[in-house]
Amino acid sequence: MTGIKQKLLSLVEPDLQKIEVALENNLTPHLELVRETAGHLMFAGGKRLRPLLIVLSARICGHENEFVTKFASIFEFLHTATLLHDDVIDGADMRRGKPVANAVYGAAVTVLTGDFLLARALNIAAESESMRIIKVVSGMTEEISQGEIHQLIKKGDITLSEEEYMDVIRRKTGVLIQGACKTGAILANASSGEEQALTKYGDHLGMVFQIADDILDYTADTGELGKAVGADLREGKLTLPVIHALREANPADRARMETIIVNTGFTNEEFDALRKLLNRYGGIDYARAVAADHVRAAKAQLEIFEPSRTREILAMMADYALQRRV
Amino acid sequence: MTGIKQKLLSLVEPDLQKIEVALENNLTPHLELVRETAGHLMFAGGKRLRPLLIVLSARICGHENEFVTKFASIFEFLHTATLLHDDVIDGADMRRGKPVANAVYGAAVTVLTGDFLLARALNIAAESESMRIIKVVSGMTEEISQGEIHQLIKKGDITLSEEEYMDVIRRKTGVLIQGACKTGAILANASSGEEQALTKYGDHLGMVFQIADDILDYTADTGELGKAVGADLREGKLTLPVIHALREANPADRARMETIIVNTGFTNEEFDALRKLLNRYGGIDYARAVAADHVRAAKAQLEIFEPSRTREILAMMADYALQRRV
Repeated sequence: MTGIKQKLLSLVEPDLQKIEVALENNLTPHLELVRETAGHLMFAGGKRLRPLLIVLSARICGHENEFVTKFASIFEFLHTATLLHDDVIDGADMRRGKPVANAVYGAAVTVLTGDFLLARALNIAAESESMRIIKVVSGMTEEISQGEIHQLIKKGDITLSEEEYMDVIRRKTGVLIQGACKTGAILANASSGEEQALTKYGDHLGMVFQIADDILDYTADTGELGKAVGADLREGKLTLPVIHALREANPADRARMETIIVNTGFTNEEFDALRKLLNRYGGIDYARAVAADHVRAAKAQLEIFEPSRTREILAMMADYALQRRV
Repeated sequence: MTGIKQKLLSLVEPDLQKIEVALENNLTPHLELVRETAGHLMFAGGKRLRPLLIVLSARICGHENEFVTKFASIFEFLHTATLLHDDVIDGADMRRGKPVANAVYGAAVTVLTGDFLLARALNIAAESESMRIIKVVSGMTEEISQGEIHQLIKKGDITLSEEEYMDVIRRKTGVLIQGACKTGAILANASSGEEQALTKYGDHLGMVFQIADDILDYTADTGELGKAVGADLREGKLTLPVIHALREANPADRARMETIIVNTGFTNEEFDALRKLLNRYGGIDYARAVAADHVRAAKAQLEIFEPSRTREILAMMADYALQRRV
């Protein structure tokens, strides 16, 4: 465990405990199978990034009460719902070091449990009786599904531009992380300046998280990652390291990379060859630099708040998002 | 086309036209593929039962404006979302006389388009800025997903009781039809007596529709139905005609039926044998009688309203729900 992760975990431990309780309490399905299927993934060591962001965003605006933790569940439920549907769609085998729900419970139960969690999230949002929160949550849900479909359409398209990639990851991942920060601010009745700063912080943080994920798919090993390395490319998903390397490569190397990418059934040797080319053309470094810009931009948004432990934690989360190994 | 269908259609034709326009206008996805996938099913001759029910329920309470048609889309979107996910889950080939979306666009696009429609429905509900409507819609969504999962768990269970069957169909189908009627009343600012009457009308109507669907699976022919006859049983879904016949049969006939039901790969000859046994033990007649009770109960709820063209149409819809051939 890296130093920053250890430090962060010790700082947010009390919040994480409350979040776990809230997730359990707010799940309340009428059927044991739903709890089991949802729990299979939801209680398999997720980072609780999104619920934490609500709690911390509300706190930095001076707001602290039990309802915040309750509404924090919304974002973990939505996140889990999208992962469950992703697992049906992607055909991946492993997630968080476990077989995917799809492999254990079948596609039918997995799709329906995703639907249940989505519906549950919207019910909890409705309980807030805040029209703004309801609109943030339902709006996010629509954005995410469109981002996922956009990604699907672009699968295997080696002409995917950096701009399109950014658009897809913003909708697929960014929207939910940003929404968590914004909702925290709304719950806190924050000033519009504070709300805007947290929303922008969330936007940058979301980009860091997804770009870092995409880098890890090339740099981690399977044991660390809890899922197969190179999975993105095997599913035909072009991410920033590859997009940059393809752009920079000479025609011969570009052709070599394209051959490997188009053949999603590539061998380990071919994947290693591709990784070497990514490095030669600075694909990983470029992606890290873009993510580092977002880390700086995220932290800059926090400057409008007085220095505090909470501000420190939010800043550390931005650093951790890029440095993490899983 | 039966007489009642023709008459009903001519009475609601102007409403149906407005509903079609509203469905198109409120779909507004950012991606053509979503429109195409959603439209594949949504514009393939659905009955628009749920949107019509909102419009008519609002009208019988004296309320009529363009927003009603807009909010009517919520229910068709939710309905379509559940059908898309059902098609992924059930593995059926045909729906409304066309190949299912799953077969045309694949499971990934179908699941995600279902998610999009669900999210879109909740966004339109949020636009109402009515907490009651938002809660009805998000509550329904949760109920439906639990009903679907319950049905899935009970697949192939030959001990399914009539009570459990009623519970499943109420959540799977009834909730949405009831919700449409209730939402119409809420939009109309109806008295609590009127709202309650329409809600109960919707509850009974939902039961009629689902029981009639379940009967048609044994009595229609594939050409009429737009999908394979006997599909429920092939998927291991026990419905009222079978539940009743199993309950009434002598041990030998019961054993014969169970053998056919458990073997979901039954031949056409076996299916015909089962149909004969269903008739011998009054399974179809019993289901028709139960549905007819719900038709009467639905119509009785309309008595609190003054006689009007709208009341007549709502009563006709209850009759049509049971008499229809598709």
